[in-house]
Amino acid sequence: MPVDDQIMKELKSYLNSNKERFLEELLDILRIPSVSADPKYKNDVRVMAEKTAEHLKKAGADNVEVVDTDGHPIVYGEKFVSHKAPTVLVYGHYDVQPADPLELWESPPFEPVIKKTKIHPQGAIFARGSCDDKGQFFMHVKAFEAMLQTENLPCNVKFMIEGEEEVGSKHLEKFCRDNRKKLACDVVLISDTSIIDNETPSLTVGLRGLCYMEVEVTGPNRDLHSGVYGGAVANPVNILCDMISSLHDKKRRITIDGFYDDVQKVSSKERKMMNQAPFDEKVYKKDLKIGDTLGETGYTTIERTGIRPTLDVNGIWGGYTGEGAKTVLPSKAFAKISMRLVPDQDPKKIEKLFQKHFDKIAPKSVSVKVNAHHGGYPVVVPTDSVEYKAAEKAMEQAFGKKPLPQRGGGSIPIVAMFDQVLNAKSILMGFGLDSDDIHSPNEHYGLFNFYKGIETIPFFYSFYAQMKK
Amino acid sequence: MPVDDQIMKELKSYLNSNKERFLEELLDILRIPSVSADPKYKNDVRVMAEKTAEHLKKAGADNVEVVDTDGHPIVYGEKFVSHKAPTVLVYGHYDVQPADPLELWESPPFEPVIKKTKIHPQGAIFARGSCDDKGQFFMHVKAFEAMLQTENLPCNVKFMIEGEEEVGSKHLEKFCRDNRKKLACDVVLISDTSIIDNETPSLTVGLRGLCYMEVEVTGPNRDLHSGVYGGAVANPVNILCDMISSLHDKKRRITIDGFYDDVQKVSSKERKMMNQAPFDEKVYKKDLKIGDTLGETGYTTIERTGIRPTLDVNGIWGGYTGEGAKTVLPSKAFAKISMRLVPDQDPKKIEKLFQKHFDKIAPKSVSVKVNAHHGGYPVVVPTDSVEYKAAEKAMEQAFGKKPLPQRGGGSIPIVAMFDQVLNAKSILMGFGLDSDDIHSPNEHYGLFNFYKGIETIPFFYSFYAQMKK
Repeated sequence: MPVDDQIMKELKSYLNSNKERFLEELLDILRIPSVSADPKYKNDVRVMAEKTAEHLKKAGADNVEVVDTDGHPIVYGEKFVSHKAPTVLVYGHYDVQPADPLELWESPPFEPVIKKTKIHPQGAIFARGSCDDKGQFFMHVKAFEAMLQTENLPCNVKFMIEGEEEVGSKHLEKFCRDNRKKLACDVVLISDTSIIDNETPSLTVGLRGLCYMEVEVTGPNRDLHSGVYGGAVANPVNILCDMISSLHDKKRRITIDGFYDDVQKVSSKERKMMNQAPFDEKVYKKDLKIGDTLGETGYTTIERTGIRPTLDVNGIWGGYTGEGAKTVLPSKAFAKISMRLVPDQDPKKIEKLFQKHFDKIAPKSVSVKVNAHHGGYPVVVPTDSVEYKAAEKAMEQAFGKKPLPQRGGGSIPIVAMFDQVLNAKSILMGFGLDSDDIHSPNEHYGLFNFYKGIETIPFFYSFYAQMKK
Repeated sequence: MPVDDQIMKELKSYLNSNKERFLEELLDILRIPSVSADPKYKNDVRVMAEKTAEHLKKAGADNVEVVDTDGHPIVYGEKFVSHKAPTVLVYGHYDVQPADPLELWESPPFEPVIKKTKIHPQGAIFARGSCDDKGQFFMHVKAFEAMLQTENLPCNVKFMIEGEEEVGSKHLEKFCRDNRKKLACDVVLISDTSIIDNETPSLTVGLRGLCYMEVEVTGPNRDLHSGVYGGAVANPVNILCDMISSLHDKKRRITIDGFYDDVQKVSSKERKMMNQAPFDEKVYKKDLKIGDTLGETGYTTIERTGIRPTLDVNGIWGGYTGEGAKTVLPSKAFAKISMRLVPDQDPKKIEKLFQKHFDKIAPKSVSVKVNAHHGGYPVVVPTDSVEYKAAEKAMEQAFGKKPLPQRGGGSIPIVAMFDQVLNAKSILMGFGLDSDDIHSPNEHYGLFNFYKGIETIPFFYSFYAQMKK
């Protein structure tokens, strides 16, 4: 099942002669601070939605719309080719994570610059959203443009680019439910994950789920003088620390009752295979400047971030945090705590267990409020499907190497939802690297990866169309 | 040993006819945001120093100066009466605590308003610094003015009003050492503490010492995506919580090795006496809206805040603290942690023990920096001295009741320093109430307390001069 040489030649030539423009267009949308979590960027998020729609139109999509939701808008566009051709639904998101802490950025997060790095000798684009996910969804827009302009589009395409992925895709499920027919497809294609490295392509076959909670501990009804009241009145920060500390035992296992009940056992064969992926713990530690790794006893780093559930405090605050010293016994303390889940853990059930746990451990001297932010189900992608095989072949064609199946530590909660609501499996064909600092200061995306993605996508369409015949 | 009726009549009359002006003058200085901890108020602190000097001059003090230090200035002034008269050194501070959290103030912290409360039916002044310590040092300025204007000043007086008490009186010791002769005195008189309630006068005979530390925990060298790295890389917030939690055992005793080594045992007789002070735990809990108190097993609330050392987190921060959810594994976490010390604990020694403890408990997966802010030695005031007896009599005269000796939970680190450097004992004759919310939003000071203080101070001068003859 070869790819048509002539078609690929035309495509390659189109990509080559439009390379510079593709990059300029990407830099342009990276300048829009479309931070979905922070209400002060609401208008920028809308500007970014309009810009995304404009790009879809220019690339040749039909019926392009910016669909309002109760949150940020969803951008839709499509191209119908033939009733005989399979339909690919491209999902991506145009919103980005908050950029703080700003002081740790070497260049402003919304003023993209290209710099060479050890890992990216051809250069990488430094900007918030460069990899997650503007740089990646934009590859699909450009690959689509190339296929259309060279008259080589073998599948029907639908684009659904949302603006709330970083805040839990709050309104996407309703949109999918309300538009089942319009969104009907054979496969959902997503580039929002990573490959092992630029010489080792991989496809993500598992994603952890997410349960994200916020805890508020209240002690006295007002801030107190720690000299006058300290030692007699429970300090909510100390109590919150006790609570958080109690969430792990000495083996770094999570102590919430019932937390592990639904965790699927991974066979020793699969664990062995996972651990054969190229990974150097020394390089890993050196890159992060840490003296040692730390995690659940009995598992390797790859296992800890792939097949095991985890718990992290994502933020904590309380009391006086300014310069100098203030002897206050604060009234309140807060924490954001999230858990990554693995099959078959249910985020709704974990939410309840978490709440129950905090109710149980709260001493009478404080009151505790626990609220849930967005969550998501863990995902396993079958590796024996036509979709997976097409993606595998596409990557092999582009990289010259068969991609490894890889479990990702992150979460894309909507993958499980697509399965349920649209009855469609997703292919997670991302091109980022774990070292690209997504969600961190100095997020970047390799030029190699951007162009390699644009090159790989038409291979997928081509193989997929052939295999579905 | 009666007070001269005629003198007291003259004084009372002067106080009465100047009541309104005294209050206006106090409100005026409460409008100056002299927050010593925050560099952005540096100029306001200087303005407040100049204003304090102006008030001393107007009240009749000689040789008034605003003395520059490497930090905020110290205000000095004096009045010499006679070589035969004893010399009183009045110490106070014109700087105030930071006002945050601002949103919890019912009226702006630097726009004083007078409101009636249950505890202050005659009204209280709501403003940052109203009680701690502008309202209290200003009583001394006004009492001094009254004694001078009515030609009834029986002692030599020296004023030393500093601007760095809330940040550890960093430059006061050098000033005292450099000016031993100028500051020579028989007693240091300080109003920066509280009475039990407006019907139960008390004198503070013990103060806890202070050791204030700042801890910085660093995990990875940059913020990471908690999905990609969570579970394998130590989260500095989780580790900091573990560390803080480990500082107390189940009996809420502090676990730092050697922490209790120098704690003086208080006799059961003294403990019994302490617990006879009027105190209603139910009212205490209701006032603070707490379900229960929490502290070291085996001690009452009065003991926990008076004779036992304690440890409180005064502030904690790390990771994402904005709205919504961000799945970050932060690079750093911070905490401000202070300990109240009792005789004979040495803050310098405790600092070292604390640092050693953190070095010991830090896992290899993070690095920990521990720095000390200002500290202070605990203090015990002898109750058999002429100074104490004079203060006791003065309060009895003003309140119609003998004051109870009371151990205060707070710290005034410079009291031990005065003893050492100036060879002078201090009398802690404060007029605030524990419920005045010093260091908290809505700090206030009762009008009753302000005027009662101005009335009591001349009694002290009078009794002290007689008893020293």
